[in-house]
Amino acid sequence: MSRVLIRNVSVLIVPEQGECRVDEAQDIYVQDDRIVAIMPTSITLDGGAPGAGEPAAEVVDGSGLLAVPGLVNSHTHSPMVMMRGGAEDLAIEDWFNRRIWPMEVNLTPERVRVGARLACAEMLLAGVTTFVDHYFHADQIAAAAIESGIRADLAPTFFSSAGEDAIDAAFETTRDLSSRHPRITASLGPHATYTVTDEDLRRTADLARAEGRRIHLHAAETDDQTQASLDKHGVTPIQVLERTGVLEAGALIAHGCGIRAEDLPILERYADRTTVACCPKVYLKLAMGEVTPIKALRSAGVDVGVGTDGAAVHNTLDVWEAIRMVALTQKQREHDAEWMTLSDTLRLATRGSAAAAGLENQIGVLEPGRQADIALVDLSAPHNQPVHDPRAALVYSVRASDVVTVLVAGQVVVRDRQLTTMDLPEVLVDAKALAHTLVDLSTGGAVQHYAP
Amino acid sequence: MSRVLIRNVSVLIVPEQGECRVDEAQDIYVQDDRIVAIMPTSITLDGGAPGAGEPAAEVVDGSGLLAVPGLVNSHTHSPMVMMRGGAEDLAIEDWFNRRIWPMEVNLTPERVRVGARLACAEMLLAGVTTFVDHYFHADQIAAAAIESGIRADLAPTFFSSAGEDAIDAAFETTRDLSSRHPRITASLGPHATYTVTDEDLRRTADLARAEGRRIHLHAAETDDQTQASLDKHGVTPIQVLERTGVLEAGALIAHGCGIRAEDLPILERYADRTTVACCPKVYLKLAMGEVTPIKALRSAGVDVGVGTDGAAVHNTLDVWEAIRMVALTQKQREHDAEWMTLSDTLRLATRGSAAAAGLENQIGVLEPGRQADIALVDLSAPHNQPVHDPRAALVYSVRASDVVTVLVAGQVVVRDRQLTTMDLPEVLVDAKALAHTLVDLSTGGAVQHYAP
Repeated sequence: MSRVLIRNVSVLIVPEQGECRVDEAQDIYVQDDRIVAIMPTSITLDGGAPGAGEPAAEVVDGSGLLAVPGLVNSHTHSPMVMMRGGAEDLAIEDWFNRRIWPMEVNLTPERVRVGARLACAEMLLAGVTTFVDHYFHADQIAAAAIESGIRADLAPTFFSSAGEDAIDAAFETTRDLSSRHPRITASLGPHATYTVTDEDLRRTADLARAEGRRIHLHAAETDDQTQASLDKHGVTPIQVLERTGVLEAGALIAHGCGIRAEDLPILERYADRTTVACCPKVYLKLAMGEVTPIKALRSAGVDVGVGTDGAAVHNTLDVWEAIRMVALTQKQREHDAEWMTLSDTLRLATRGSAAAAGLENQIGVLEPGRQADIALVDLSAPHNQPVHDPRAALVYSVRASDVVTVLVAGQVVVRDRQLTTMDLPEVLVDAKALAHTLVDLSTGGAVQHYAP
Repeated sequence: MSRVLIRNVSVLIVPEQGECRVDEAQDIYVQDDRIVAIMPTSITLDGGAPGAGEPAAEVVDGSGLLAVPGLVNSHTHSPMVMMRGGAEDLAIEDWFNRRIWPMEVNLTPERVRVGARLACAEMLLAGVTTFVDHYFHADQIAAAAIESGIRADLAPTFFSSAGEDAIDAAFETTRDLSSRHPRITASLGPHATYTVTDEDLRRTADLARAEGRRIHLHAAETDDQTQASLDKHGVTPIQVLERTGVLEAGALIAHGCGIRAEDLPILERYADRTTVACCPKVYLKLAMGEVTPIKALRSAGVDVGVGTDGAAVHNTLDVWEAIRMVALTQKQREHDAEWMTLSDTLRLATRGSAAAAGLENQIGVLEPGRQADIALVDLSAPHNQPVHDPRAALVYSVRASDVVTVLVAGQVVVRDRQLTTMDLPEVLVDAKALAHTLVDLSTGGAVQHYAP
């Protein structure tokens, strides 16, 4: 049995509704993978601590630090860090057809694993304790996640164009990964409504229902996609997801910037099992026109999480940056500076993202019984001072570099800004050595063509 | 004579037009306050270095680092760091009338100096070597800037409502500051077209022309302001600036989100002396509706710089963040992912911001004869790796915490991420001690009322 005590720390409390707050001078007791108690330091000093007789294996001094639920990257393609900066200043069509999909011809298991290790390092050092991934060679990503100590939900990507065997193989990988490690869950990963046929989406949904799995896919990424779907098929992408059974099975929809008013009643019917991930930096960078309609989705009861998408477009896996962009772009979208408040933003980033990961009962809140996924943040640097409101600091001034200590499932994976689980110089050397192979456009071909 | 040699460093080259590039393995020779030579390390190793016989007083090892022109914060109110997080989730009217202007009743010379010291610390540590300020008690800000080693252009703020004596005092402060220190320049600081009368703007413009000074003020911050000006006076704020002689004298216009098509030919006539500062995080956070029309302004030949505005709304003085937001919001505004390219963004952030500061011949580019204002950036951390394009790293993945060494006017003011000029713990203790006095709303009154 492993015990960790985080001593004398401030704790971010995120209620289901209403204002978030910070409770100061708390002790967090961790046993194995879970939080077992959070209580004022003054009480535990009087001997009221759980298992007071048994000293913790590790005591983390939380003085001057703020404990927040470990961040969740609710939609990413982690190995794409290997293409960081390799596809700039392009619209979505050229980004896919001239860069990314030709580059992805170069994917190998080794290259994916090396990229995933780098991604896990970047995320853990920034306080990201869970990522929800959608990519090829997902078994390699699982290996990197297990090694690094991070938590992950992995969806093996497939296109209909790759053929039935490839789809069956992706299904099989989902099955394999589901039982590999307590920190790993797996979902079914059709790429998108415009790259996977209705027939294959139906097969996916049938399998999801039969095996109790979730489906993670791209849909209604832009309004142009929605219009193209209406023009070609007479239905919106969300209507495609409904008629193929994907929504009934339960889905994480990436982006949804092209979700229209008529889609909302549909999504509302499946709000207990369908969520949306919002990655706003990408929508601005690709000039996609709109950002996810979070206000309308929340009104329909749909949970929304925050993600970075892949670093080939987002350039970082920095969820702090993504959270800030969600707040800023939502205020802009709704022409309402009083909407997407500090508390609503933090709730989206914690409870919302946990729901997007399918882990709403496991993570996302610091309270007894939850998984001990915790980031300790230092707000003492000049760029956060003075702190009139720590919630404002978390949303609008904190940097990923302010994260000092990180626990996942009770394990200290970052201590004093250093990874404990991986040799970072080695991770970086491996990534640098292979980086050129990923952006090589001389191979010819492409894994897919973008024509929604 | 002081000499610094930055050895074996990569150097960001920003031409007036076309693509930016990075020259690797360069030596930068600094003598007193200026760059005197930049040449390949291989040449200087052969003995070709200027003054090769005299060793440099300090040799900075630039191996693995990227030298960029010190960043310029082209519009801010630096002491407002003292209100950071004190006015959240508010529209512009309430932000001014319920928070900021009532809070500013509490300003004293000491509180402004303490705030400015904190601001200078935050900026220098982030590689910001020049700030263009607009605030009260500007003499105190000058003292902090001189102490910290940063460069500043300071405009003492005034409202017409404060009366003629206050305006004369602000003018006098501008005069005083102009001759105080080589790193300090001073401008005239009418607050805005909606808080300063046409008569006072005319007086300001006359004085500016007579004494050869620039005018830094807010104008056309939102389209609502432009519409209100048209409704009340029959002219746009830019037309007010023209008819009062402000544009002819030479102006730095903060924000300009409400600049309309009919304003562009006017601005084009004064493009040799009129610039605009863009602070996009603020426009999104306050849901101001539009961002600065940079594409149209650049087509009219108007230089545009990048700023943070005050931390009471921007929450940081992080110019890297502001640069990134400029690129993202401009792509979004123009519905064009191929606009505001990496090179154009970096040019705006360097040459554009130098022009906004009125220092286009002194700073903004790394070349012989320019002031030695240099930030050395370390791109080796996981969130920047691998580096397929260092320009993309600077715009889209770098963090302020990646800045390791900073020179201003040839002085090493940040060495290995530590300030050399100020005692940071003391700066922070002073700020914390006074922070509550700045957000005190019990004093009553307000320095001004927002009703454009």
